[in-house]
Amino acid sequence: MHNLSHQNPTLSIIKIGGNVIDNPEKLTAFLIAFNGLPGYKILVHGGGKMATKLAQDMGLQATMVNGRRVTDSQTLQVVTMVYAGLINKNLVAQLQTQHCNAIGLSGADGNLIKATKRPIQNLKNTETGENEEVDFGYVGDLDAQSVNTKNLVLLIENGFIPVFSAITHNGESQLLNTNADTVASALAVALSNNYQTSLIYCFEKKGVLRDIEDEQSVITEINPSTFETLQAQNIIHSGMLPKLHNAFEAINSGVKQVFIGSADELHLLKTENFGTRITT
Amino acid sequence: MHNLSHQNPTLSIIKIGGNVIDNPEKLTAFLIAFNGLPGYKILVHGGGKMATKLAQDMGLQATMVNGRRVTDSQTLQVVTMVYAGLINKNLVAQLQTQHCNAIGLSGADGNLIKATKRPIQNLKNTETGENEEVDFGYVGDLDAQSVNTKNLVLLIENGFIPVFSAITHNGESQLLNTNADTVASALAVALSNNYQTSLIYCFEKKGVLRDIEDEQSVITEINPSTFETLQAQNIIHSGMLPKLHNAFEAINSGVKQVFIGSADELHLLKTENFGTRITT
Repeated sequence: MHNLSHQNPTLSIIKIGGNVIDNPEKLTAFLIAFNGLPGYKILVHGGGKMATKLAQDMGLQATMVNGRRVTDSQTLQVVTMVYAGLINKNLVAQLQTQHCNAIGLSGADGNLIKATKRPIQNLKNTETGENEEVDFGYVGDLDAQSVNTKNLVLLIENGFIPVFSAITHNGESQLLNTNADTVASALAVALSNNYQTSLIYCFEKKGVLRDIEDEQSVITEINPSTFETLQAQNIIHSGMLPKLHNAFEAINSGVKQVFIGSADELHLLKTENFGTRITT
Repeated sequence: MHNLSHQNPTLSIIKIGGNVIDNPEKLTAFLIAFNGLPGYKILVHGGGKMATKLAQDMGLQATMVNGRRVTDSQTLQVVTMVYAGLINKNLVAQLQTQHCNAIGLSGADGNLIKATKRPIQNLKNTETGENEEVDFGYVGDLDAQSVNTKNLVLLIENGFIPVFSAITHNGESQLLNTNADTVASALAVALSNNYQTSLIYCFEKKGVLRDIEDEQSVITEINPSTFETLQAQNIIHSGMLPKLHNAFEAINSGVKQVFIGSADELHLLKTENFGTRITT
């Protein structure tokens, strides 16, 4: 492992979810801001309402285990169609109008992201309290070897702007549904030897809030020491904890900085006035 | 325009349709043969039964004009999901199992194929005999400037094997449904300055047949002179004529050779014992 971070060019990896994808005005504004970012960049997108609507149209019943959706083979078809097809190609077509040389990708393309099908797990059923074997279906988990850095760098350095759906494959012809946050952080970590990598999670808030009721109470910077204090003060708890643990894991694996904020404000990233900055 | 065809490397562009895509055994055998082809290669695929099934599930009514389906906005969603998503990503995942470095693409990706929405046409209605204005909807037509040769050559020469669905875009964020045969020939023509290009149309027969009832009566080679004779003898007529006119148009625009044959026999291409060869 080498570290040339000071000489390396910058790379921003931005993750957006359904709240942006399902809102045409927000989406257009976001894509303009994305295109305006300096340096290399990658977009990672989740799904939107269309996948749920299509599953209903097809008469599929959602199977839930412990509040998590099971990806059976028909659900995998739906998310492959909607995420890797409809959403991905529309995002690319919109970016191309701005002369942003977007290329839509799944993890299968160029073998860019190889995942492992999540093994059957022995979990406590939150309703019955009993332990049971749970098969989450066609869900892909990532590890440190998942990203094909060589092929991805070839695309980036030849002027393509990758736009990833969170559909991956296992290298044995099976497509897998993967968490889009996880895809974004795996890409950021894997590319941090080649670039000074920033990982930007866009969500529905302006950042990590000091007071959940006050949208203006964004905490501008969190480092490991202030994170401990904020937890001790019970300012950061519940839903925000896994996001921040993921962010610090990325930082500890070579990512230069992580931002958590609103897609509506991405244009502020240039001035580093964007959301919450997580750093070492 | 330069022509360096004798020094140039070879490129094979293969088009497959639903009869291969909908048959898992045929498809696997075809993909092995495709991967075994020497030189650079590109796969172009049409659709299959899934698009029709999905449209039915979504409750869409097919609008037909003069026997041709109109691509309304919902139909465009369906073909984008099925062709650019489900079929494209499954083909790529299968090719990757053979260490064939496939990358799935639409015309929007890398702005690789820019089309023009077909203008409203004044056509005779074959049922009523009256002329009427016909809008085929979100259908894309191609011209000599449609293919972004620069970006496509970058992908090819960096070791990627393009797998194209026939979804294109107009450069103004509109995706368009394009004929897959037309996409294949436009790619072959556009790349014929860079490579010695072969265009291979796979269909349900073993080639152009001397006797439509006899699957063994394949005409092994047709050139402009024998084409005239075969037409005069009424051996080639009706449905086969547009295919052959397209083939000769490709030949006359720089493509080295065109083959028409069965996907099941693609492994014979190496020995040039495959289907019908159309040449100058």
